[in-house]
Amino acid sequence: MPALNPHISVDCVILGFDSKELKVLLIEREHINGVSPEGHKLKLPGSLIYKNEDLDKSAYRTLFELTGLRDIFLKQFAVFGNPNRLSPQEDLDWLRKTTNNYQIDRVVTIAYYSLIKLTESNRTPKTIWYPVKNLPDLIFDHNQIIKKALEILRNEIRSKPLCFELLPKKFTIRQMHDVYEAILDESFDSRNFRKKLKPLKFLVPLQEKEKGVNHKPAQLYRFDRKLYFKYNKKRNGFIL
Amino acid sequence: MPALNPHISVDCVILGFDSKELKVLLIEREHINGVSPEGHKLKLPGSLIYKNEDLDKSAYRTLFELTGLRDIFLKQFAVFGNPNRLSPQEDLDWLRKTTNNYQIDRVVTIAYYSLIKLTESNRTPKTIWYPVKNLPDLIFDHNQIIKKALEILRNEIRSKPLCFELLPKKFTIRQMHDVYEAILDESFDSRNFRKKLKPLKFLVPLQEKEKGVNHKPAQLYRFDRKLYFKYNKKRNGFIL
Repeated sequence: MPALNPHISVDCVILGFDSKELKVLLIEREHINGVSPEGHKLKLPGSLIYKNEDLDKSAYRTLFELTGLRDIFLKQFAVFGNPNRLSPQEDLDWLRKTTNNYQIDRVVTIAYYSLIKLTESNRTPKTIWYPVKNLPDLIFDHNQIIKKALEILRNEIRSKPLCFELLPKKFTIRQMHDVYEAILDESFDSRNFRKKLKPLKFLVPLQEKEKGVNHKPAQLYRFDRKLYFKYNKKRNGFIL
Repeated sequence: MPALNPHISVDCVILGFDSKELKVLLIEREHINGVSPEGHKLKLPGSLIYKNEDLDKSAYRTLFELTGLRDIFLKQFAVFGNPNRLSPQEDLDWLRKTTNNYQIDRVVTIAYYSLIKLTESNRTPKTIWYPVKNLPDLIFDHNQIIKKALEILRNEIRSKPLCFELLPKKFTIRQMHDVYEAILDESFDSRNFRKKLKPLKFLVPLQEKEKGVNHKPAQLYRFDRKLYFKYNKKRNGFIL
């Protein structure tokens, strides 16, 4: 293993939607380098960068090494640099041990995030997908890092067509509704929700209905990206 | 001076609009600690953080110490961590000298930005306000850092009411037009520009016209923040 830079780390917040709930990817603290201290704390996949490693590369490498996941687009979203973030002492001791007693006093971490559709292929032996609603105490400031990522995701889903990345190609309005409720952690009146979608021409109704359901099959829709760009161009410019 | 953390720095991109041009705040490399190497390179105000210093605090402190400016809201916008960013060698040598030969190999910098109305009070003896259009070669990757800040600013001014922070309380459409042209570095047909503003109810015409001009005095407007919030709520939600 190349030498580590004991001052800088990367951490990845991978949010996954499993068609019901929003989850976040955690790993067991113990799994790293086989060191097993007391307790079974969970953490975000992340680690110290190598001495000569680019930050983005380090994030992709770390995610892959710790979880087996790749081909996930990571976006840098914030830096966490509180001088006291490596607490409690127990967590810091663990970090020193797993890095063969590097002299670690302070680590600034660069946080990355991603939102994915959670499928079987993302469930590797090392991954723990934990509902964001009820997180346990994670190591260091990882709860705070997730909170910040959620804030950003919630702003984004209100202003960008993120939801379609979580839906199948053909979807019902009910499914869209579920995505919004799960991610924003709010409930929306379904009649109002439908009303708001009505004027959106980029939601194109198909000549098809749901199959294999034991209620009245609902209309299926698709998302038309070209029509969305037109709509967005008109809407998005504040003035110009 | 407290001990430095020779691995992490902060850099501030302060963009200032002087009612004609967009400028960026630079300082002379030489001014730091009185060390005067060859050349007269310019740089962003920024420096290594202290060992136990919070990142945001470090940015405010550094800006104040190097330029005399304070009360400027700084927003973290990106991290620059390319392992080779401390080049050319001459710049790295300078950094080592000014920090009394700290062992500096790699520095990850957290970049902050701000947009202000450039007035006499921002012009302190240490500040150099340089037009962003025609920047010289700055030290390290500072040109790149400014480029990224401009990208963000240009996106923001298209979607947020930033321009009003650069205008006087009472302003003409011509003045607004000038802000957009200067910041986006594009020219806009003034008739089209007026047409686009027409439906915006948060631009409230005053019972007043320009004074002391030697052309036909133009209508004055004010920005109504409440009406803007209403407008924005309607417009901004993608769906909800």
